[in-house]
Parts: sequence; C-alpha cells; structure tokens
Amino acid sequence: MENPVSDPRDRILDTAAEQVRRFGEAKTNVVDIAKAMGLSHSAIYRHFQSKAEIFDALAARTMDEESDLATRFANAQGPASERLHGLVLALNRSKRAKLGDDPEIHGLYRRIVTERPDLVADYGRRMTALVRHVLEDGVARGEFSIHDVDAAAGVVRDAVTVFVHPAHVEQAVHAGLDMEPRLHAVIDALILAFAATNQTR
Amino acid sequence: MENPVSDPRDRILDTAAEQVRRFGEAKTNVVDIAKAMGLSHSAIYRHFQSKAEIFDALAARTMDEESDLATRFANAQGPASERLHGLVLALNRSKRAKLGDDPEIHGLYRRIVTERPDLVADYGRRMTALVRHVLEDGVARGEFSIHDVDAAAGVVRDAVTVFVHPAHVEQAVHAGLDMEPRLHAVIDALILAFAATNQTR
Repeated sequence: MENPVSDPRDRILDTAAEQVRRFGEAKTNVVDIAKAMGLSHSAIYRHFQSKAEIFDALAARTMDEESDLATRFANAQGPASERLHGLVLALNRSKRAKLGDDPEIHGLYRRIVTERPDLVADYGRRMTALVRHVLEDGVARGEFSIHDVDAAAGVVRDAVTVFVHPAHVEQAVHAGLDMEPRLHAVIDALILAFAATNQTR
Repeated sequence: MENPVSDPRDRILDTAAEQVRRFGEAKTNVVDIAKAMGLSHSAIYRHFQSKAEIFDALAARTMDEESDLATRFANAQGPASERLHGLVLALNRSKRAKLGDDPEIHGLYRRIVTERPDLVADYGRRMTALVRHVLEDGVARGEFSIHDVDAAAGVVRDAVTVFVHPAHVEQAVHAGLDMEPRLHAVIDALILAFAATNQTR
C-alpha cells in the first residue's frame, strides 16, 4: 500500500526499482513507470528529466542508505577499534546482501558506480568523514595516537576499498571467497598502526 | 624487424597487440593477424584455438611482465620497507603508463581482468608470494616482527588493491588524482603495524 504522504520522488524511485527487478534495466522506461503508478509520464518528468536521472537517483539512494548505516557506527559508544571493524563489516555485508537479494539493483548500482565518478567521490567523502570521526574518538579515548587524522581516514578508505567496492565484492562472492577474515586482518593492521606510539606521521 | 628465432606464440601476440592498437579489439580477428604475419590462419590455430585465447594470452603476458617487475623488488637488497614501497609504486606506475601509452591494450586487459577471475587469482597469488618474500626478509633483517607472514602478505595484497587494480587506476587518472601520496601513506601504516612489537596477530 502506498503512503499518500510519502515523497513523490521516493515513490517514483520505488516503482522504478520494482520495474528494474521485474523487467531489467534496459526494458524499464519512464512510460512504464508512469503506467505502473497510474500517472501520466509528464507527472514523472516533473521530478526527473530522464530515465538516466531516475537510475542515478536510485544509486544515490543506495549510497545514502549505506551512509546511514555507517553513521550508526560513527555515532555509537564503545571502543573506536570495535566500531571501525563494525563499520567496514556492515558495508561489506550490505553489499553482499544486495548482490544476493536484489541482483538487478546491484547491477544498476555497479554500472553507475563506473559511470558517475562524481557520485562515488561524494560517497567516498562522506564515508571518509565518518571514519575520521571514529578515529578522532579513538584518539580522545586514548586508543590511537594519530598525528594526521585526515591522512589516517584516507588510509582506511583506500585500504578497505577492496571490501566495499561492489565490483570486488561481486567477484569475491562469485569465487566463493569469504572476505571477512581478510577484512578483519586489514583493520587489525591499521588499528595496530594507529595505536603505535612510535609513528612518525 | 622480427627475430626469426623468437617464440612463434610471442610473435603472434605481438602482431595481435599491434592490430588491437590500430583497429581495436572488436575489429581484430585471427584472419587479420595471420595476414599481417604473412601466414595462413591455420598456422595461427596451431598455437591458439580462438581469438579469445589470443586476447587472454595477451593479458597473461602483461601479468607476467608485472610479475617480473615485482620480482626485482622482491629479490633486491636493502630495507624491506623501502622495497615494499618500491614494489607497489612500480605496479601502480606500470598500470598508469599502460593506460596512457597503450590505451587499447589497457582496455583489453581491463576487460579480461573482469572476465577471467582465474587469471586474476593466479596473478594475485604470484604477487602475494613476492610480497611475502619481502616481509620475510623484513623479519630476518629485524625490521618487522610478524607472527603470521602469510596473513600479513594477504593484508598487503588487499590494502593496496585500490592502487594496482586497472579499473581503480583508470578512475583515479581520469579524475586527475595523484595516488602516490595515498599509496605511500597506506604502505607506511602497514609497515608501522608490521614493526609494532605489541602485535597480537
């Protein structure tokens, strides 16, 4: 049942996602989305200029959901080291779940990640800011002794890309690889580096 | 000038690479390669069963070249930490040079990296073995105190993927990003972790 007070943009995106799941990305167009919503296509064009813009917005919404997920770990209480493990693991599991449960949307997302480096850069900046927040907490709590928190957050972003980038997650899942022990080993190494008191930078 | 004693497989691959550079991957076929070599196409089929097999072998040869490059750092003298920086930097620069100087072959390589996870896994294993060798040297030289060298080599492999995977290198180059300071920051963090005497794993 549709919620009559929900954002019309969100309802269009929900319908578009449903069409992509049922008919695939290539066979989904603005007229079909309008028809499925009982609207004229001009009603859709009031919110989105093209099918491509709808698909981009779907990918952006997925990124927002992941950002919300990461925010929970950034704002949580408890040791920063545990929250860092938790944050990266949650993103990895979210990607894997999407791949398994929602393959068409994952495919759309994967394609847009390649075609829209600007969206990815923005997502990267938000995620790095959340990681930065965890690292700052770690310093405040005495767990880490980091001289340059921005650089350290960048190190985390780069070192865990292989665990959160949809193409890598897809390849690992298809190869039947369990990434989780590797993910924890990388985070453990970073935490060790951040905790080392003899660090020069 | 062709070397008459060179491996016929190598000469076929050289000719195929030249055709791909001039006409693109889609427009290169076995008949054209044979014609360019003054051979019948059955002479090619004696060495390769299909165009796809030739292209796979081209990608595999690029991987071999990178493996040779990395081997130089693995077998070099000097501090393991410097060799680790040098090895990863050389791979990053090799990918960037290929992208700039040989974009068609880079494109072919990128496609095959996606389609042939078995080739990539083999490449990954060879690279990880070379990194492992550097880490072992680092332990022998007293630079590192690593309990599980296999796990540590895996950590390096995963944490630097973003700097050596052709898709990531391509994206960074197109975005005009300088990856080198980030690459060194990640390696510095790993070295710090490997040097930490209080490590628990």
